[in-house]
Amino acid sequence: MSARVGVIGGGQLARMMIPPAMEMGIDIRVLAEAPDSSAALGASMVGDYTDPQVVEAFASEVDVVTFDHEHVPLEILTTLVDRGVSVQPGPHALICAQDKTVMRKRLSAMGIPGPSWAVATTREDIDAFLQTLGESSAIAKTPTGGYDGKGVRVFRASSELDAWLLAGPVLVEATVPFVREVAQLVARRPSGEMIAWPLVETHQRNGVCSEVVAPAPGGHDVHARARTIAFEIAETLHVTGVLAVEMFVLSDDSLSVNELAMRPHNSGHIFTELSQTSQFEQHLRAVLDWPLGATELVAESGVMANIFGGVKRDSVAEVLRAHPSLKLHDYGKADRPGRKVGHLSLTGDDPAALAQTLQGLIPLVARDGF
Amino acid sequence: MSARVGVIGGGQLARMMIPPAMEMGIDIRVLAEAPDSSAALGASMVGDYTDPQVVEAFASEVDVVTFDHEHVPLEILTTLVDRGVSVQPGPHALICAQDKTVMRKRLSAMGIPGPSWAVATTREDIDAFLQTLGESSAIAKTPTGGYDGKGVRVFRASSELDAWLLAGPVLVEATVPFVREVAQLVARRPSGEMIAWPLVETHQRNGVCSEVVAPAPGGHDVHARARTIAFEIAETLHVTGVLAVEMFVLSDDSLSVNELAMRPHNSGHIFTELSQTSQFEQHLRAVLDWPLGATELVAESGVMANIFGGVKRDSVAEVLRAHPSLKLHDYGKADRPGRKVGHLSLTGDDPAALAQTLQGLIPLVARDGF
Repeated sequence: MSARVGVIGGGQLARMMIPPAMEMGIDIRVLAEAPDSSAALGASMVGDYTDPQVVEAFASEVDVVTFDHEHVPLEILTTLVDRGVSVQPGPHALICAQDKTVMRKRLSAMGIPGPSWAVATTREDIDAFLQTLGESSAIAKTPTGGYDGKGVRVFRASSELDAWLLAGPVLVEATVPFVREVAQLVARRPSGEMIAWPLVETHQRNGVCSEVVAPAPGGHDVHARARTIAFEIAETLHVTGVLAVEMFVLSDDSLSVNELAMRPHNSGHIFTELSQTSQFEQHLRAVLDWPLGATELVAESGVMANIFGGVKRDSVAEVLRAHPSLKLHDYGKADRPGRKVGHLSLTGDDPAALAQTLQGLIPLVARDGF
Repeated sequence: MSARVGVIGGGQLARMMIPPAMEMGIDIRVLAEAPDSSAALGASMVGDYTDPQVVEAFASEVDVVTFDHEHVPLEILTTLVDRGVSVQPGPHALICAQDKTVMRKRLSAMGIPGPSWAVATTREDIDAFLQTLGESSAIAKTPTGGYDGKGVRVFRASSELDAWLLAGPVLVEATVPFVREVAQLVARRPSGEMIAWPLVETHQRNGVCSEVVAPAPGGHDVHARARTIAFEIAETLHVTGVLAVEMFVLSDDSLSVNELAMRPHNSGHIFTELSQTSQFEQHLRAVLDWPLGATELVAESGVMANIFGGVKRDSVAEVLRAHPSLKLHDYGKADRPGRKVGHLSLTGDDPAALAQTLQGLIPLVARDGF
């Protein structure tokens, strides 16, 4: 019988797991939020992932449960594990991707480089943190539920955070004077094997990833340290599947961990074309505890640009005409302003030429700018 | 609205069109023979492709009709075209893939190199053909319906073909003293753009493709002539989509065309890993008259081995353990002896090492030999 993998969440990450699942003969099933989800083709069930009965019924039909997003309540996952279900990554790891406060505690305990931070429940906590820092501003984050720049803000005075404090504790972090942002993707199997892709550089607009360049420009030393950090996190936290570690690079080339994601990640989309093994294929292999695939690059470099909804776009044929090596990924999602509805990938042997070509392509997918 | 492509036939070729269709946001629909077909995930209809009403109902739901196999009756396709349906490749081209006699006539008229041939309806026709050749044996083929070595036989006397002659005319061809077999894949859009992949070498066992090496060993000259032949056939016959031209290479490096297929073909599976654009992605782009994708190789070479049913096999995990660059393609088909149920691909920069590795892998997928 085919291996059965259940993916909770019907977004584009689940959607992009379907092609490698088909190729490897994996019976992939998706618990989707709605019938018209991005991963609808693989949806075996439509339901609420916060409802224990829905998740338990879904889990009973598969060999391994994994995720399109980090929002499944931990209590539900813990119950599944207690009943013998293989949940990958497990709740003990996933909590660090769900709760930024837990992540900071764990990473600090491991000695992983990151900003000064504190958990604040009152204005006084925040004022004390700012005073200790000796800075006039800092970053506030809601411990859970944030994504794509939501739940993150710069503040200069504790009074700005009153509304957030009413909702619960707030994570406050020192502003990191970074010069660029990078992401290190690795994969780990339950039995311990790990593998890394090359470090990538991510570009953000309004707090949302817009473009990725792979491999990240910069010296071998930065790449080696980023890989060591990601492997250490994956191993210590017992992460399984793909782990994305988002990091800041400072002017002295030191690194500071910003966020963790325990699933395929926007920063790794370029590896579908650029690496022998895509992050989606690797995630499936890893959660099934199958041997991991080679991550060697098949070209010198690659660039990826997200396509956002709500802007006038050229037809697929017009976009493809722009470059014979261009690959278009359409998420099959309703077009809403600012929503990630697809991405473009381009690989080749001249990073500067690729970046220039991509800049020329962006008007084709977002004529009015984004 | 998404472009809608309808594929008649639910085999592995239709199945392998589904991943690139998903990525490019194409609404792919499959007319499958049975509910448990290889391409079941994309099946929008189960029905008989020889029933005009079934095919017409299927065609009414899509923008373009294309094929997993060549067996749809031409009358049905001609009727669709007369009603304004986009059928790619069209019946005027497809007839050469359906009927080997028509193919031989057309190719001979074009001056494409091939064996001496004749259409025989009686023993006397066959004896006359053998006598003209001055050979003691020749090849007989049923004009239609043959595949994977079926409908092809070597004969030494006309009396051996009595049963075939009862069923209708028989195509007789001179035996070609080939030293190796190659296949040239090209793609062509209705508006005329064409592109070729590098020539591949195919290995057969019992008349069935077992392994493919890409690019084919041999000089630049053979590659150039093979490409010219395939482009000439594609252009003259107005083929659209992928065209595979199977050719024999003789000891003097001359070429002789053996068969044509107007769809993705077993000999092109390696390009899923080895080329920037797979034959499945290219076929979809071509039949939609979209710009074709680059066919540059992403590694020096690749090898592909078919997996046949009816033999004891290792688990997927055991097979993948054999090499980190190995890619397994499972067709999701019931395991019947001799049936193609999947394939393995391996790419790299050392053809000799790849071939050796693959030889070591074959026992994993066919422990009892095949």
